[in-house]
Amino acid sequence: MKSYREYLWFNTKNRVELINITDRVQQIVDKSGIDEGLCLVNAMHITASVFINDDEPGLHSDFKKWLEELAPHEPISRYAHNGFETNADAHLKRQIMGREVVVAITGGKLDFGPWEQIFYGEFDGQREKRVLVKVIGE
Amino acid sequence: MKSYREYLWFNTKNRVELINITDRVQQIVDKSGIDEGLCLVNAMHITASVFINDDEPGLHSDFKKWLEELAPHEPISRYAHNGFETNADAHLKRQIMGREVVVAITGGKLDFGPWEQIFYGEFDGQREKRVLVKVIGE
Amino acid sequence: MKSYREYLWFNTKNRVELINITDRVQQIVDKSGIDEGLCLVNAMHITASVFINDDEPGLHSDFKKWLEELAPHEPISRYAHNGFETNADAHLKRQIMGREVVVAITGGKLDFGPWEQIFYGEFDGQREKRVLVKVIGE
Repeated sequence: MKSYREYLWFNTKNRVELINITDRVQQIVDKSGIDEGLCLVNAMHITASVFINDDEPGLHSDFKKWLEELAPHEPISRYAHNGFETNADAHLKRQIMGREVVVAITGGKLDFGPWEQIFYGEFDGQREKRVLVKVIGE
Repeated sequence: MKSYREYLWFNTKNRVELINITDRVQQIVDKSGIDEGLCLVNAMHITASVFINDDEPGLHSDFKKWLEELAPHEPISRYAHNGFETNADAHLKRQIMGREVVVAITGGKLDFGPWEQIFYGEFDGQREKRVLVKVIGE
Repeated sequence: MKSYREYLWFNTKNRVELINITDRVQQIVDKSGIDEGLCLVNAMHITASVFINDDEPGLHSDFKKWLEELAPHEPISRYAHNGFETNADAHLKRQIMGREVVVAITGGKLDFGPWEQIFYGEFDGQREKRVLVKVIGE
């Protein structure tokens, strides 16, 4: 069994951003030399997500609006967590969107349906954060 | 390390359906010949889910009602994504229910607690869709 | 490829509890003797979660309050599932928080960002329940 790990780094301009990382993950799979196996992609920070959905700007604005309804950023005083920090909502949003995805590797490729794309979901940005990509297989 | 992949196909009669696929996944694990490892089961479409919960009709009607409250289908105009399509709610519902499950394989069996069952969650049906099952191990 | 499985047992005093299990999972990884691979940690019961977030008491009280808003326990009659049981809300809460996490193992350690901690989320406690830890790799 072979394994390979690499990080992706982010430092977003906005507090909330959704970034397509599919090509960067496929490049890491290429470097791994693994043809058959599994690829784990996870946020290493607890106010960010990795998820799979559609790369359509309208949908992304729907996601942001919907997450803001389900877990509003304000009022800041709404959350017990918001003492030194003001990012409690980001911890909740990340639970809805998920921490990680596991993707099958088949024939050296991310084994995807026609519209599947991997996104980094940042909910408390403007600082350095990482995503871990771990590939195992043969 | 061995690996094995197979698809399950769906074309549901209704827009929203929850379908128990546990036996079909176990049959794929049987075919894989893998005794110890991991089994990834994921929707290959971004308006569908794979999740693990209870096979109880009352709970399934609760799930449908609850998802409709959290991410209503109508009004269609509520969502920026709903231009050519009208399925933005299905993209959101799938984030709540999840894209995938990873199940341990032990002694050739899905290593489950007493009530765990795997479901395909369709939120924008009446068209052909696939689930990927990938088994790796030895 | 090596594999190793162990259970963690829980019997919480309260109906809802969030318990840090990071050290116990690392101990199982240690016992597995696996240096590079993947570690699956999943609830074996369908009214409980395993998730990764921050170990901060304010945030945990925010999680409990927020989940109670999204999927209220009462009125019991709100849910079709609540015939013999009264735990429909726990099945819904677990979908928000997730069933499982998959963690990379690198150099024999859970490959975590600075604040990542693994939690068992109990939403229908006061009974014996299990978490499965399965490690595969080399």
